[in-house]
Amino acid sequence: MVLRYPNGKPYQPILPKKNKNNHENIIFGNRGMSLEDEINQSNQYYLQQDTAVIHKKPIPIQIVQVDYPQRSAAVIKEAYFKQASTTDYNGVYRGYYLDFEAKETHNKTSFPLNNFHEHQITHMKSCIKQAGICFTIIKFTATQEVFLLPASILFNYWNNQENGRKSIPKSIIEKNGFKIKYHVKPLIPYLTIIDKLIENLHKE
Amino acid sequence: MVLRYPNGKPYQPILPKKNKNNHENIIFGNRGMSLEDEINQSNQYYLQQDTAVIHKKPIPIQIVQVDYPQRSAAVIKEAYFKQASTTDYNGVYRGYYLDFEAKETHNKTSFPLNNFHEHQITHMKSCIKQAGICFTIIKFTATQEVFLLPASILFNYWNNQENGRKSIPKSIIEKNGFKIKYHVKPLIPYLTIIDKLIENLHKE
Repeated sequence: MVLRYPNGKPYQPILPKKNKNNHENIIFGNRGMSLEDEINQSNQYYLQQDTAVIHKKPIPIQIVQVDYPQRSAAVIKEAYFKQASTTDYNGVYRGYYLDFEAKETHNKTSFPLNNFHEHQITHMKSCIKQAGICFTIIKFTATQEVFLLPASILFNYWNNQENGRKSIPKSIIEKNGFKIKYHVKPLIPYLTIIDKLIENLHKE
Repeated sequence: MVLRYPNGKPYQPILPKKNKNNHENIIFGNRGMSLEDEINQSNQYYLQQDTAVIHKKPIPIQIVQVDYPQRSAAVIKEAYFKQASTTDYNGVYRGYYLDFEAKETHNKTSFPLNNFHEHQITHMKSCIKQAGICFTIIKFTATQEVFLLPASILFNYWNNQENGRKSIPKSIIEKNGFKIKYHVKPLIPYLTIIDKLIENLHKE
């Protein structure tokens, strides 16, 4: 049976990859791990270190039927995926509210905007009005490159889709975003970029 | 069939109450509505007014089996409730990170601490280290009184449970908490209390 996410993409458990060439495992130790897992692992490290409290929100589900077998845990027998009304991640760091989405793309030269839903953009715009810090973490899987892109850049491209362009060029992400180099503890040290954004806030 | 929450409490849909005395409906217009619904409604109002962005987190669920009937939405056929690792509500207001739990009690003179789990307390302590604002909204259903209690008071009682006292006296909640009077828009105007807490932060 194929498990699928609400967006229809098949669920892929994280298993050790069988590479033709084992050297790949040495160079790209995290290849095969989803961006979500990498970020969850990083957030766990940040939490343990008292650096920040950032969590992924559970998938929203409409429960219809629950069974209560004797001496066992309640079993949900019928439920449906609901559309989330927010982004996936939020939390607090140095007194700042952080809110973001994490997205992977197989594309090599641009990031397709159909990775986002209107309500996620609306949500981030609302958070920014409350002085929250909103952004996207984008991973180009082909090159295993990870960028932090401030929400303002995403909004520019999102708002101008009528003009025909349905994606953000990678060159723009490289220029206006911040490349996050893989690290060990944590795997994706994105808060060092947030430190820079906070510094800039105070300069303004 | 009885639907139950992960804590074993039966799920109660919000239906108009049949009261022996219909006058009760006039005096307590919101009687029969759960505190959760009242807060969700208030948060929706705050969001619409661009006052704050506060959401309840979905219930965390471990999905085991999903069916994909043709031409219909995916159906979750087997899933289990997981224990949440955070509190129920969080979001951003005036640049501040807010994090809280909402709890009702039928008790008349005290609020039992077994309404909380250790991990919720741990989570709030972590958030406070990051300068988040943490609290509990407590409703005494017998009198329909709602209070906002800063997390620091909750921690005091939580940490001293070995000494025998397993609840917070209502008198302490009245003295150290803030009574929230029911309003129309929003129903529970708890952010006016948060304004006071923020003012005090700046005085310190």
